[in-house]
Amino acid sequence: MIRHVAMFTWKPETTAEQKGLVSAELAKLPPLLNGLRSYSFGADAGLNEGNADFVVVADFDDVDAYLGYRDHPEHVKVATQVIGPIAARRMAAQVEI
Amino acid sequence: MIRHVAMFTWKPETTAEQKGLVSAELAKLPPLLNGLRSYSFGADAGLNEGNADFVVVADFDDVDAYLGYRDHPEHVKVATQVIGPIAARRMAAQVEI
Repeated sequence: MIRHVAMFTWKPETTAEQKGLVSAELAKLPPLLNGLRSYSFGADAGLNEGNADFVVVADFDDVDAYLGYRDHPEHVKVATQVIGPIAARRMAAQVEI
Repeated sequence: MIRHVAMFTWKPETTAEQKGLVSAELAKLPPLLNGLRSYSFGADAGLNEGNADFVVVADFDDVDAYLGYRDHPEHVKVATQVIGPIAARRMAAQVEI
Protein backbone atom coordinates (compact mmCIF):
# COMPACT_ATOMS: atom_id res chain seq x y z
CA MET A 1 0.00 0.00 0.00
CA ILE A 2 1.12 3.55 -0.69
CA ARG A 3 0.18 6.20 1.87
CA HIS A 4 0.21 9.80 0.72
CA VAL A 5 0.40 12.49 3.39
CA ALA A 6 0.19 16.23 2.77
CA MET A 7 0.19 18.98 5.37
CA PHE A 8 -0.44 22.67 5.01
CA THR A 9 -0.38 25.92 6.87
CA TRP A 10 -2.72 28.58 5.55
CA LYS A 11 -1.86 32.22 4.94
CA PRO A 12 -2.96 34.45 7.85
CA GLU A 13 -5.57 36.23 5.74
CA THR A 14 -7.33 32.96 4.77
CA THR A 15 -11.06 33.15 5.45
CA ALA A 16 -13.25 30.50 7.05
CA GLU A 17 -15.04 30.22 3.72
CA GLN A 18 -11.81 29.45 1.88
CA LYS A 19 -10.88 26.84 4.49
CA GLY A 20 -14.32 25.26 4.23
CA LEU A 21 -14.02 25.09 0.46
CA VAL A 22 -10.87 22.94 0.75
CA SER A 23 -12.76 20.23 2.64
CA ALA A 24 -15.83 20.54 0.42
CA GLU A 25 -13.82 20.09 -2.76
CA LEU A 26 -11.59 17.30 -1.43
CA ALA A 27 -14.72 15.40 -0.38
CA LYS A 28 -15.76 15.18 -4.03
CA LEU A 29 -12.62 13.32 -5.10
CA PRO A 30 -12.92 9.76 -3.68
CA PRO A 31 -15.62 8.55 -6.10
CA LEU A 32 -13.39 9.61 -9.01
CA LEU A 33 -10.35 7.61 -7.89
CA ASN A 34 -9.23 4.07 -8.65
CA GLY A 35 -7.40 2.00 -6.05
CA LEU A 36 -8.23 4.31 -3.15
CA ARG A 37 -8.45 2.48 0.18
CA SER A 38 -8.94 5.36 2.56
CA TYR A 39 -9.14 9.13 2.25
CA SER A 40 -9.19 11.36 5.28
CA PHE A 41 -8.50 15.01 5.83
CA GLY A 42 -9.23 17.72 8.31
CA ALA A 43 -8.24 20.80 10.22
CA ASP A 44 -5.79 20.65 13.07
CA ALA A 45 -7.46 20.05 16.43
CA GLY A 46 -5.50 22.83 18.15
CA LEU A 47 -3.77 20.65 20.73
CA ASN A 48 -0.28 22.01 20.12
CA GLU A 49 1.28 25.38 19.38
CA GLY A 50 2.99 25.69 16.02
CA ASN A 51 1.00 22.94 14.35
CA ALA A 52 0.10 22.81 10.68
CA ASP A 53 -3.47 23.87 9.82
CA PHE A 54 -4.66 21.01 7.65
CA VAL A 55 -3.67 17.46 6.82
CA VAL A 56 -4.62 14.92 4.16
CA VAL A 57 -3.90 11.18 4.46
CA ALA A 58 -4.77 9.00 1.47
CA ASP A 59 -4.09 5.27 1.17
CA PHE A 60 -3.82 3.65 -2.25
CA ASP A 61 -3.40 0.08 -3.47
CA ASP A 62 -0.16 0.89 -5.24
CA VAL A 63 1.99 3.60 -6.79
CA ASP A 64 -0.09 3.72 -9.97
CA ALA A 65 -3.25 4.40 -7.98
CA TYR A 66 -1.47 7.21 -6.12
CA LEU A 67 -0.21 8.71 -9.39
CA GLY A 68 -3.75 8.52 -10.75
CA TYR A 69 -4.84 10.67 -7.80
CA ARG A 70 -1.89 13.05 -8.01
CA ASP A 71 -2.47 13.69 -11.69
CA HIS A 72 -6.27 13.50 -11.77
CA PRO A 73 -7.57 16.73 -13.36
CA GLU A 74 -10.11 17.28 -10.57
CA HIS A 75 -7.41 16.87 -7.91
CA VAL A 76 -5.03 19.15 -9.78
CA LYS A 77 -7.85 21.70 -9.98
CA VAL A 78 -8.42 21.63 -6.20
CA ALA A 79 -4.67 21.79 -5.56
CA THR A 80 -4.00 24.70 -7.85
CA GLN A 81 -7.23 26.71 -7.57
CA VAL A 82 -8.46 26.11 -4.01
CA ILE A 83 -5.43 25.07 -1.92
CA GLY A 84 -2.58 26.78 -3.76
CA PRO A 85 -3.80 30.36 -3.30
CA ILE A 86 -4.18 30.02 0.50
CA ALA A 87 -1.20 27.73 1.30
CA ALA A 88 1.71 29.38 3.09
CA ARG A 89 3.62 26.17 3.64
CA ARG A 90 3.29 22.58 2.44
CA MET A 91 5.02 19.31 3.19
CA ALA A 92 4.20 15.98 1.59
CA ALA A 93 5.50 12.43 1.48
CA GLN A 94 4.45 9.02 0.20
CA VAL A 95 5.44 5.93 2.12
CA GLU A 96 5.09 2.24 1.35
CA ILE A 97 3.36 0.45 4.19
CA MET B 1 -10.49 9.04 16.87
CA ILE B 2 -7.50 11.38 16.92
CA ARG B 3 -4.97 11.04 14.12
CA HIS B 4 -1.51 12.47 14.76
CA VAL B 5 0.65 13.19 11.71
CA ALA B 6 4.27 14.37 11.80
CA MET B 7 6.57 14.93 8.86
CA PHE B 8 10.27 15.67 8.76
CA THR B 9 13.07 16.56 6.46
CA TRP B 10 16.52 15.48 7.59
CA LYS B 11 19.64 17.62 7.60
CA PRO B 12 21.82 16.94 4.54
CA GLU B 13 24.61 15.42 6.61
CA THR B 14 22.31 12.81 8.20
CA THR B 15 23.74 9.31 7.88
CA ALA B 16 21.89 6.14 6.90
CA GLU B 17 22.61 4.85 10.38
CA GLN B 18 20.92 7.87 11.99
CA LYS B 19 17.89 7.46 9.70
CA GLY B 20 17.69 3.77 10.52
CA LEU B 21 17.79 4.52 14.22
CA VAL B 22 14.64 6.66 13.93
CA SER B 23 12.61 3.72 12.65
CA ALA B 24 14.22 1.28 15.06
CA GLU B 25 13.40 3.46 18.07
CA LEU B 26 9.88 4.38 16.95
CA ALA B 27 9.11 0.68 16.49
CA LYS B 28 9.65 0.16 20.21
CA LEU B 29 6.90 2.60 21.22
CA PRO B 30 3.56 0.91 20.36
CA PRO B 31 3.64 -1.69 23.18
CA LEU B 32 4.12 1.16 25.67
CA LEU B 33 1.06 3.14 24.56
CA ASN B 34 -2.55 3.09 25.71
CA GLY B 35 -5.37 3.71 23.26
CA LEU B 36 -3.21 3.31 20.16
CA ARG B 37 -5.16 2.03 17.16
CA SER B 38 -2.55 2.19 14.47
CA TYR B 39 1.06 3.34 14.25
CA SER B 40 2.84 3.63 10.95
CA PHE B 41 5.94 5.44 9.83
CA GLY B 42 8.46 5.32 7.06
CA ALA B 43 10.79 7.02 4.65
CA ASP B 44 9.50 8.85 1.62
CA ALA B 45 9.20 6.62 -1.44
CA GLY B 46 10.92 9.13 -3.72
CA LEU B 47 8.03 9.63 -6.11
CA ASN B 48 8.10 13.44 -6.05
CA GLU B 49 10.74 16.14 -5.96
CA GLY B 50 10.75 18.32 -2.87
CA ASN B 51 9.07 15.76 -0.63
CA ALA B 52 9.64 15.40 3.09
CA ASP B 53 11.98 12.58 4.14
CA PHE B 54 9.96 10.80 6.81
CA VAL B 55 6.39 10.62 8.03
CA VAL B 56 4.62 9.25 11.11
CA VAL B 57 0.86 8.60 11.26
CA ALA B 58 -0.54 7.48 14.61
CA ASP B 59 -4.23 6.88 15.36
CA PHE B 60 -5.50 7.06 18.94
CA ASP B 61 -8.84 6.40 20.59
CA ASP B 62 -9.06 9.94 21.90
CA VAL B 63 -7.17 13.09 22.84
CA ASP B 64 -6.00 11.63 26.16
CA ALA B 65 -4.43 8.67 24.40
CA TYR B 66 -2.64 11.00 22.01
CA LEU B 67 -1.39 13.15 24.89
CA GLY B 68 -0.16 9.99 26.60
CA TYR B 69 1.95 9.30 23.50
CA ARG B 70 3.13 12.88 23.09
CA ASP B 71 4.29 13.08 26.67
CA HIS B 72 5.48 9.49 27.18
CA PRO B 73 9.11 9.62 28.42
CA GLU B 74 10.24 7.06 25.83
CA HIS B 75 8.63 9.04 23.00
CA VAL B 76 10.09 12.29 24.28
CA LYS B 77 13.49 10.58 24.39
CA VAL B 78 13.24 9.50 20.74
CA ALA B 79 11.99 12.92 19.71
CA THR B 80 14.70 14.88 21.49
CA GLN B 81 17.69 12.53 21.26
CA VAL B 82 17.21 10.66 17.95
CA ILE B 83 14.96 12.82 15.74
CA GLY B 84 15.72 16.32 17.02
CA PRO B 85 19.43 16.35 16.18
CA ILE B 86 18.87 15.35 12.53
CA ALA B 87 15.60 17.20 11.76
CA ALA B 88 15.92 20.23 9.49
CA ARG B 89 12.19 20.81 9.20
CA ARG B 90 9.10 19.45 10.94
CA MET B 91 5.37 19.84 10.48
CA ALA B 92 2.73 18.16 12.62
CA ALA B 93 -1.02 18.18 13.10
CA GLN B 94 -3.70 16.24 14.95
CA VAL B 95 -7.12 15.80 13.39
CA GLU B 96 -10.34 14.32 14.70
CA ILE B 97 -11.66 11.69 12.32
